Amino acid sequence: MSDVAIGIDVGGTKALAVVVDAGGQVLDELRSGTPHEHDANPGARAAEVVADQVLELCRRQGLDFHEVPIGIGLPGLLRRDGHLAFAPNLQSASGADLGALLRESLGNLSIKVENDANCAALAEHRWGAGRGVDDFVMVTLGTGIGGGVIADGQLVRGRNGFAGEIGHMVVEAHGAPCRCGGHGCWERYASGGGLARLTTLAALGGRLPTLVARAGSAELVRGEDVTAAAGEGLAEARAVVDEMGWWLALGLSNLVAVLDTGHFVIGGGLSQVAEVFLPSTRRYLAELVEGYDDRSPISVVCSSFGGRSGATGAALVAMGNAP
Amino acid sequence: MSDVAIGIDVGGTKALAVVVDAGGQVLDELRSGTPHEHDANPGARAAEVVADQVLELCRRQGLDFHEVPIGIGLPGLLRRDGHLAFAPNLQSASGADLGALLRESLGNLSIKVENDANCAALAEHRWGAGRGVDDFVMVTLGTGIGGGVIADGQLVRGRNGFAGEIGHMVVEAHGAPCRCGGHGCWERYASGGGLARLTTLAALGGRLPTLVARAGSAELVRGEDVTAAAGEGLAEARAVVDEMGWWLALGLSNLVAVLDTGHFVIGGGLSQVAEVFLPSTRRYLAELVEGYDDRSPISVVCSSFGGRSGATGAALVAMGNAP
Repeated sequence: MSDVAIGIDVGGTKALAVVVDAGGQVLDELRSGTPHEHDANPGARAAEVVADQVLELCRRQGLDFHEVPIGIGLPGLLRRDGHLAFAPNLQSASGADLGALLRESLGNLSIKVENDANCAALAEHRWGAGRGVDDFVMVTLGTGIGGGVIADGQLVRGRNGFAGEIGHMVVEAHGAPCRCGGHGCWERYASGGGLARLTTLAALGGRLPTLVARAGSAELVRGEDVTAAAGEGLAEARAVVDEMGWWLALGLSNLVAVLDTGHFVIGGGLSQVAEVFLPSTRRYLAELVEGYDDRSPISVVCSSFGGRSGATGAALVAMGNAP
Repeated sequence: MSDVAIGIDVGGTKALAVVVDAGGQVLDELRSGTPHEHDANPGARAAEVVADQVLELCRRQGLDFHEVPIGIGLPGLLRRDGHLAFAPNLQSASGADLGALLRESLGNLSIKVENDANCAALAEHRWGAGRGVDDFVMVTLGTGIGGGVIADGQLVRGRNGFAGEIGHMVVEAHGAPCRCGGHGCWERYASGGGLARLTTLAALGGRLPTLVARAGSAELVRGEDVTAAAGEGLAEARAVVDEMGWWLALGLSNLVAVLDTGHFVIGGGLSQVAEVFLPSTRRYLAELVEGYDDRSPISVVCSSFGGRSGATGAALVAMGNAP
């Protein structure tokens, strides 16, 4: 096991690079914007951004960029060979092989690529909120919903390496259209993007009169306005958050049905306001899970690494001893 | 590994007991009715039925009922200690410990109990349609939908041993009520019971005029009438079967999202008419799975053991070397 590694979580709008030691401590970090999907050749541009981050962190930490283990976390369907096959929330890089581009530009052969939510699950399992838990699911609530499934202590990868695309479970047949091309996917109801959608529907439906008055029009009320107002106790906002909490519980309940999960670790941007929706989610979970009272208690907790779990897990993957 | 074992699949209306050799061959079998849920003490009555099957098969095969390994497959939430915690489709035995009752009545200590669909998955993995496949899901279509999940060559059991309750994934939020207490569970749309429900709705909605005329009233048209007529090419029946095939594909697609499953083995009573609905299911799967073309081909095949997969797998569990 290497002493330190660099992990980079490449998302739709930014890339977070961290230097992590063998105990999971983040020693340094750097954030950069990722290219817009309409840029020319966004895959190559994304690789340049990441290479610059590696060079800067190596300079600051006195590391050799040819040798330091590097792990990259990416959203979407990532083949075991490192090719990103399909990424509805990262259109910019679909089809690009960031690992290969970086191996070439940095002259570093120890670059590994893994799905971002799988990285997060591995970090939480080794060092965080899933430590010592053999059956848990990492659920990252961002633009969409990502997932990493740990069953019997092992990351479930599946046939192609695409397991954990839990945001694309259909929970409402013929429901809201999704960027993946489907309809009624869980992430259209229970992610940051889902909350934004529920917020717009509630504002247009006259169920958020105070927030619409504040924003000036229904279209301008954002999910962040709702979570902030819910935190302050505004009933109309609490109702929308409660609705999102119900949808979150519904999808978790589906995972319990399939996997008999006893523990969920919630990460991603929306987890920063988890205190406003997790109480609803926990309450609805007890209603929605089949035979809830016959099971060991099901826990739903927040990520230990917050927004750094993907990047930290990518570094763990780079260290080469993730399960 | 024992030379032979007895496996018994105890369902809502009947129990099938088989004698299986170490190569998975069924040497003998026996079917009996199981007690109605309104019988007095149905758990003890079920144990008597099964004990009688064991005694009869041992007599016929010259086996010692004190010594022969015995496995029992049961529907529903089965604790690792053998207690059946919750079984919406086998109300008769909920709460009973059939394993303990049988150990006592037969004086045989080598009795094991496992979820019926897990048994089926293990039998198909060892000897049948899932042989050599590391990531597959066994899907049993009976009154409800049972499941057994094999990931990376191992049966996924989950926290309490309840994994694989795939029929209770919610695919239609606020949908049809289910015996489990929930709403919109997959098995209300895609099992034998689901087909019966879709049939009644179609008959009442005027979409099965020929079959309603044949049966005398909408309420009397059964799922079996629809599959038979669809097999003969009747368009109105084919439409209902196609609808069921779509729902089946929707749930399989959810499993692909979570587990990246590449192979499904379909068992249970409804699989006997799989040729009428599986073509629709395979076609819809290509539409519903995220990134379908970027994956290895997904296969959906019928069980090798048909109605005997649960009982055969229970015998495998009894032999003591199931994964």
